[in-house]
Amino acid sequence: MCQKGQVGHMNNAPIGVFDSGVGGLTVAGEIMRQLPGESIVYFGDTARVPYGSKSKETIITFSRQIIRFLRTKNVKAIVIACNTASAYALETVAAETDIPVIGVIEPGAIAADKATRNGRIGIIATEGTVSSGTYSNVLMNLNPSLQVFSKACPLFVPLVEEGLLYDPVTLEIADRYLYDLLSYDIDTLILGCTHYPLIRRTIQKVVGEEVVLVNPAYETAKELESVLRERDMMSDENRGSHRFFVSDSAIRFGKFAGNILPCDIESVECVDIEKS
Amino acid sequence: MCQKGQVGHMNNAPIGVFDSGVGGLTVAGEIMRQLPGESIVYFGDTARVPYGSKSKETIITFSRQIIRFLRTKNVKAIVIACNTASAYALETVAAETDIPVIGVIEPGAIAADKATRNGRIGIIATEGTVSSGTYSNVLMNLNPSLQVFSKACPLFVPLVEEGLLYDPVTLEIADRYLYDLLSYDIDTLILGCTHYPLIRRTIQKVVGEEVVLVNPAYETAKELESVLRERDMMSDENRGSHRFFVSDSAIRFGKFAGNILPCDIESVECVDIEKS
Repeated sequence: MCQKGQVGHMNNAPIGVFDSGVGGLTVAGEIMRQLPGESIVYFGDTARVPYGSKSKETIITFSRQIIRFLRTKNVKAIVIACNTASAYALETVAAETDIPVIGVIEPGAIAADKATRNGRIGIIATEGTVSSGTYSNVLMNLNPSLQVFSKACPLFVPLVEEGLLYDPVTLEIADRYLYDLLSYDIDTLILGCTHYPLIRRTIQKVVGEEVVLVNPAYETAKELESVLRERDMMSDENRGSHRFFVSDSAIRFGKFAGNILPCDIESVECVDIEKS
Repeated sequence: MCQKGQVGHMNNAPIGVFDSGVGGLTVAGEIMRQLPGESIVYFGDTARVPYGSKSKETIITFSRQIIRFLRTKNVKAIVIACNTASAYALETVAAETDIPVIGVIEPGAIAADKATRNGRIGIIATEGTVSSGTYSNVLMNLNPSLQVFSKACPLFVPLVEEGLLYDPVTLEIADRYLYDLLSYDIDTLILGCTHYPLIRRTIQKVVGEEVVLVNPAYETAKELESVLRERDMMSDENRGSHRFFVSDSAIRFGKFAGNILPCDIESVECVDIEKS
């Protein structure tokens, strides 16, 4: 009890999780499933979504604004639940922040390196994430003998947001996007966009059961647990409480979130992130 | 010559055209085709796209910033080549500006009212434009006996941006989106998003030849011509010159623009619109 007490005021503080919109809810959902005692403050930058086509400088500016907002909610750690922001802003903002900041790319890359048997890894993501080259760089740093093949899949996000998760149209588009990757004989595929886990069954159908799908949302929640345990920052609550903030269109967000998360959403608040 | 000379210093000044991103290039393209002597200064707000989910106040602020920027290029008239900005900001900014400001909604609505024989008009647009109700309001003001039916088509913009203009997938999605509208026996359909003219052949295939498609980009260029003629502000050049500015990702913009416009794009400049 006493040892716990030393960092007790921090233990039950929430985790700040942010994304350009709703996609990061797959990461928040994994944290809720794996760490049910942790509270979450989620911010979805729905006024400025998508991040995938914006420049590095813009994404760093947006990430700084959001972290400033999350810190007003006394978060004990921050999860950048967005591949583009993890690729462009993690290094910069982590260096400026005195609490742990975790991105989604490294946990996914580490899991893919462990999973592959033939050393041939595919990555599917938004154009921004693919052209940043970050997954490839992280993978090559982990293991220079890997061969990495990337493919941008710009239609997956709108198809998911339209709810066409198991639709023949999504299957057809997945077939086209994944054709080249499969010809490279990959045995492991990173779902490098937070929306993609929602169509993983459709993707698995196209790539076949022998290809391992790596879900960075799942791996990031595992990484968060290990960071919190290392620093003795785990919550001692049985069940965390969760708050949701967006920069625009709170109603639409709530509807989508209700389909993804393993909990009910009581309220979604809209904030002016540029002025907060 | 003398009469022309009275306003001659203004005649060959460029037209300012702006949009939240690349969609407004269909309007710029129509101006180039219909008024080849006019020069254009185009601004695409690619750092803050999309506008459809943002509030009226935000869109007015953005529009003012962009008009301030365009006026530094000495434009003689401004075309708001964006449905959301036309819906939210046209009235306010036109009242503040001493040169003509034209939006895309009224020209499209007037053409639809003229085209319909049975008084039943369909509108397809983004969720933002549909939920703003602006097209319906403008149409009802023109002719209260009209019956107006709207449908948001969120996948059309990403399908166009992916280049699937005549693809079976786009045809399938168009079939689903337009099914309800067709059941209302519309005889006229407004392409209420600046991207949609690029898939008008696919849309025409779905709705059949008997439904008239109204392209607001085309009607807006006609309206611009009539405004310039009325004020004796037409250019006397044979061929205008065109400049392109964006708030982010100039390279991607240039690639897309090259596919839409009837001219080569020599350069795209990136500007900080909030500070310009």
